[in-house]
Amino acid sequence: MTAPAAPARSQAGPAPQDAFSRLQALVAEDMGRVNHLIATRMASEHAPRIPEITRHLVEAGGKRLRPILTLAAARLCGYEGEHHVLLAATVEFIHTATLLHDDVVDESAQRRGRPTANLLWDNKSSVLVGDFLFSRSFQLMVEADSLRVLAILADASAVIAEGEVMQLATANDLSTGEDAYLRMIHGKTAALFAAASEVGGVIAEAEESRIEALRAYGQALGMAFQIVDDLLDYGGSSAALGKNVGDDFREGKVTLPVLLAAAAAPDDAARDFWVRVIERREQGEDDLPHALELMRASGALAETEARARAYAEEARAALAPFPASPLREALADVVDFVVSRLN
Amino acid sequence: MTAPAAPARSQAGPAPQDAFSRLQALVAEDMGRVNHLIATRMASEHAPRIPEITRHLVEAGGKRLRPILTLAAARLCGYEGEHHVLLAATVEFIHTATLLHDDVVDESAQRRGRPTANLLWDNKSSVLVGDFLFSRSFQLMVEADSLRVLAILADASAVIAEGEVMQLATANDLSTGEDAYLRMIHGKTAALFAAASEVGGVIAEAEESRIEALRAYGQALGMAFQIVDDLLDYGGSSAALGKNVGDDFREGKVTLPVLLAAAAAPDDAARDFWVRVIERREQGEDDLPHALELMRASGALAETEARARAYAEEARAALAPFPASPLREALADVVDFVVSRLN
Repeated sequence: MTAPAAPARSQAGPAPQDAFSRLQALVAEDMGRVNHLIATRMASEHAPRIPEITRHLVEAGGKRLRPILTLAAARLCGYEGEHHVLLAATVEFIHTATLLHDDVVDESAQRRGRPTANLLWDNKSSVLVGDFLFSRSFQLMVEADSLRVLAILADASAVIAEGEVMQLATANDLSTGEDAYLRMIHGKTAALFAAASEVGGVIAEAEESRIEALRAYGQALGMAFQIVDDLLDYGGSSAALGKNVGDDFREGKVTLPVLLAAAAAPDDAARDFWVRVIERREQGEDDLPHALELMRASGALAETEARARAYAEEARAALAPFPASPLREALADVVDFVVSRLN
Repeated sequence: MTAPAAPARSQAGPAPQDAFSRLQALVAEDMGRVNHLIATRMASEHAPRIPEITRHLVEAGGKRLRPILTLAAARLCGYEGEHHVLLAATVEFIHTATLLHDDVVDESAQRRGRPTANLLWDNKSSVLVGDFLFSRSFQLMVEADSLRVLAILADASAVIAEGEVMQLATANDLSTGEDAYLRMIHGKTAALFAAASEVGGVIAEAEESRIEALRAYGQALGMAFQIVDDLLDYGGSSAALGKNVGDDFREGKVTLPVLLAAAAAPDDAARDFWVRVIERREQGEDDLPHALELMRASGALAETEARARAYAEEARAALAPFPASPLREALADVVDFVVSRLN
């Protein structure tokens, strides 16, 4: 059997934002049921603080990209049952739990343009409500009645937590290698994208090659997504100074742009600069612009963008085993949507 | 079929500490394998901080009461397989994860006589390593290959988190009713005792009535355990001022001794006292002794002890469906061990 050609990258197609809207529209009915299920299952008769905090985060209007992947993957495999709705809600609960804990760990004050739960309530509530949502996700996936799905999501959860611990340990450490960086972003981001896509195929009982293709698609899309995020924290490849730029820098996070720029430092002055601002976190007013200049001059920004685009192409190519359909095209074009944030 | 008589409370039997040693000895070989599995599965190739922190807590010499319940319950039902070891390790991982998060939430400095992980490392690491251990527990239970076991442990996890959030919300609130207190300690303690015992019966494919008996045993034992703990925080029913006494008081936690004493306050002065020290947390040097005096005079301490003993009797009685055996006797006598901490 000859596999249909992989969907080519659209050269002059519709705007990437439209691609995301198209994908949303294709799973809109399912997503309505996911939202209803999320609203029902975040309830707690005895601890009203749980739905208060969850609602604050869930209703802040995230894109719901991860549950959309689960729904789209299941439908792409012709699934006609009900369990994909359970699994999509599961994936969103896992994601929400990690956001609550991330904001405690990063001491963040803003998320999705609103004050974080740890700021509005307190760290304690964020930790415990995160635990509750993680447990709820687990209850939901048990209802989907598939040990294979449970194994995939349990593994993803462990890899996520491991990635977060790695991130703590590598912060402010310039000796972090590229391998460690890639493993870390696989954990903190790509593992859930991969699992979200894969379980859609598993629940649909698709052929193994297609399940593997969906996993590869989610994995590559997640890697592209996180590298783009890390690049945007330095204003993108054009390094335009906008709002939110520099958060990672101020925390001394060792992301790909920093890693590449430090490795390509042209002289001792540049090397000393990176050690001072990232490892010792001694930063003055002119340091962020100087860091951006070093990143631009060393080609670190361009190289980071190239890596993101390579993962994006990998994600597109992974869809090759599926015959052409509006859903396959939308999933392929959503890759552009993720990378389009750089423009 | 006539059920064998419930094991009677030993009037002049061996000391309760011996009962616990006897139970430990009866499952010692299994427990060795649980410890080995815990050591293996706490490892993380890429994030060495995970086993460092876990080892700090796991090797501090907790009693391992919860995994012992799982092993003993499975053996009591004649189980000859291997999965009880997986489930016992699962239960200990869930427990360890909740301890890590509890110490962050309570800002504790000591646990099992050693400085807490949040003090030795930081809150961030405790949150994330707790998440990792919770995910690991989930992976382990998936290996046990039973959707029913997964449902029981998923439900227990959600109830635990809900109980912890309830505890946050009821702290410093004297209007907390006894119902709310009992629901809260069911969540924070008894739910895992119940699940730990129940899954031993489920994995052994025991009769439903025996599975239900094991669940009831764990549930009542857990309730007794937590009420004893709450009473010990006021020095036990004799209210002897020893070390560690008064932690709950200083935090303004609304536990059973406080609840009962405040409800039985003889006059406005006593009522005002409880509002000041628990709700407003304005405490001076003489307030703890005065609180103890009010608790003793109102009968709150004696009543709290009576409640703990009633749950203990309930736990013993729950074992009635099982024929007499050294394991049944040890489980029955361990109830005394839990309550003996009051003497």
